[in-house]
Amino acid sequence: METFFYWFDHLGVAVFAISGTLLAFRKNMDGFGVVVLASVTAIGGGTVRDLILDLPVFWAHDPTYIYTILVAAFGTILWLRLRDYIHQKTLLIADAFGVSFFTVMGAQKALEADYPAVVCVVMGTITACFGGMLRDVLARDIPMVLKSELYATTCIVGASVYVLLAPYTALTALLVGGLVTLLLRLGAIRWQWSLTVFQEHGDGHR
Amino acid sequence: METFFYWFDHLGVAVFAISGTLLAFRKNMDGFGVVVLASVTAIGGGTVRDLILDLPVFWAHDPTYIYTILVAAFGTILWLRLRDYIHQKTLLIADAFGVSFFTVMGAQKALEADYPAVVCVVMGTITACFGGMLRDVLARDIPMVLKSELYATTCIVGASVYVLLAPYTALTALLVGGLVTLLLRLGAIRWQWSLTVFQEHGDGHR
Amino acid sequence: METFFYWFDHLGVAVFAISGTLLAFRKNMDGFGVVVLASVTAIGGGTVRDLILDLPVFWAHDPTYIYTILVAAFGTILWLRLRDYIHQKTLLIADAFGVSFFTVMGAQKALEADYPAVVCVVMGTITACFGGMLRDVLARDIPMVLKSELYATTCIVGASVYVLLAPYTALTALLVGGLVTLLLRLGAIRWQWSLTVFQEHGDGHR
Repeated sequence: METFFYWFDHLGVAVFAISGTLLAFRKNMDGFGVVVLASVTAIGGGTVRDLILDLPVFWAHDPTYIYTILVAAFGTILWLRLRDYIHQKTLLIADAFGVSFFTVMGAQKALEADYPAVVCVVMGTITACFGGMLRDVLARDIPMVLKSELYATTCIVGASVYVLLAPYTALTALLVGGLVTLLLRLGAIRWQWSLTVFQEHGDGHR
Repeated sequence: METFFYWFDHLGVAVFAISGTLLAFRKNMDGFGVVVLASVTAIGGGTVRDLILDLPVFWAHDPTYIYTILVAAFGTILWLRLRDYIHQKTLLIADAFGVSFFTVMGAQKALEADYPAVVCVVMGTITACFGGMLRDVLARDIPMVLKSELYATTCIVGASVYVLLAPYTALTALLVGGLVTLLLRLGAIRWQWSLTVFQEHGDGHR
Repeated sequence: METFFYWFDHLGVAVFAISGTLLAFRKNMDGFGVVVLASVTAIGGGTVRDLILDLPVFWAHDPTYIYTILVAAFGTILWLRLRDYIHQKTLLIADAFGVSFFTVMGAQKALEADYPAVVCVVMGTITACFGGMLRDVLARDIPMVLKSELYATTCIVGASVYVLLAPYTALTALLVGGLVTLLLRLGAIRWQWSLTVFQEHGDGHR
C-alpha cells in the first residue's frame, strides 16, 4: 500500500513537471530554464507544505523525485521536438489526476502530524495549488489558481471530504477524497463551471 | 494584556485579508481565488518570519486565524456586492493600522527568541511588508513596497524604535514603536512623502 | 581558511546586492524599495537553501550580512548619483564571480549536512539562482535564469564537479568547482552560448 502511494506520488510529480515544461515551451524558454520551471511546478507545493508543517522537505532526503522530474521534462522535450504539439485536453485531464492526488496526500501528511482539521484542508490545497502558482508567477502568467474554473475550491472540497472521513477509515477517506477532487476538476473542465462572487464590472483582468 | 494583543493581531490579519480581497475584486478574480489572495496577504509576512526564525508557523496550530480571514473576505465580498464601492482612503488608513501593529509584533517575536537587534528590525519589516508584496506579485501589480510612499522605511523606523526601547519597558516600547510606524504611514499617505534616492531618469517603471 | 571563505561569502552577497540595486535604479524605484530588492537578491537564494535543508538561516544569527547589503546598496546609490552610469559588462562579470562562489558554497553546505549528492547539486543551484529569480519576479522582469545564457546550467555543472571531487580533497573541489562555474559563465557571456532545446516557434516570450 505504502509503495503504491509512493509511486502514485511520483506520478503526480511527473504530471506537474510535464505541465511546467509545456509552459516553458509555450514561452519559448531555453535550456535548463525548462528544468527550473518543471521542478518548481512539481515540488513547489509540497515544499511549502513541509516547511510550514515543520517536517523534513520530502525530496531533500529522497533524490528519486529529482530523477522523476528530469525524466518527465526530457521526455516532454523529446516529444515536443518530434511532434511540436500536445493535446491541451490531455494535459488538463492529467493535471486533474495530479491535483486530486496531491490534495489528499497533503491533507493526510498534516493530519498524521496532528495538525487541526482546518489546517489540514489548507495544507491539501497548498500542496495541490502552490506549485502551479509559482510556475505561473515565474513565467509571468496570471496564476491559474486565481482565475476561475474552480481550481482551489476543488482542492478545498476534496481535502475537507478526506479530513471528515479520515477518523473512520484511512484508505476509504483517501480514495473518496481523491475521487471527489478528481470528479469536480473534470466536471469544471468539461462544463466550464465557475464560482462567480463578484458581478462583472469594468476594470478587468489584464 | 496577552489576550488584548492576540485580538489586535487578528484585527491586523482581518485588515490585510480585506486588502487582498479588494485587489482580487479590482482584478475581476473569481471564487476562491479571492480567498487565496486574502490569505496570502494576511498571513504571508508572518509565515516567512516564522520560517526564517525557525519558530512554529503561527497559524499552523491555531486555526482561528483562518476563520478570521474567511470572515473578513466574505464580509468584504458581501459589502462589494451591495455597494460595489469602498473608500480607497478608508482602506489605506486601516492598512496603516495593520502595518504598524505587524511591525512591532514581528520585531517583538524575534527579540523574544533572542535574535540580534538588526535581525529583529528586519523581521518587523518582513512581517509587515511581505504579505502585501506576495499579494501584488500574484496579482501582477508592481509591489507597493517597492514603490515610494515610504512603505518599508516606515516599518524599519518603527521596528528600530521598538527594539531600542524594548530593554527598558516592554509595553511602552510596543506602544511607542507602533505609534511611530502609524504616524509615519499616515503622514506619508496624507502629505505623499517620498524618499527619492535617484534623480528622475528616462526609462521609467512599467 | 574559514575566515577567507567567510569574507568571500560577503563579497558574493555584496555583488548580488549591487545587482539588485541596479535593477531598482533601472525601474526608477525609490527609497527603501531599493534596499528590499538588494536584500532579496543577495540573501534570497541562501535563505531558501537553509529552509529546505532545515538548517538555521545563515544571516539570522549574523547581522554582518545585513550591514554588507546596506553598504553595497548605498555605495551603488552614491555611485549612480555621481555617475548615473555603470558598465553593464562589469556587472555581468562581478555577477559571474558571485554565482560561482555561491554555487560551490551552497553545495558544500548541503554535503556537510549529509544530504544525497543530487540534492547537493540542486542546493548549489538554488543558492546561486533563486536570489536573482526573486529579484526579477519582484521587479516584474522575466527571470534571467529562465532565459538562456546557460545561467542555471552553469550552476548545475559547477556544483556537480564540486560534489564529485569533494570526497577526495575538500579545498581542491571548492576551487575547481568554483572555477568551472566561473569559466562557463564568463564563456557564456563572452560568446553568448545558449542551450536550445526547442526549435524556434511562433508564440514568443512576452
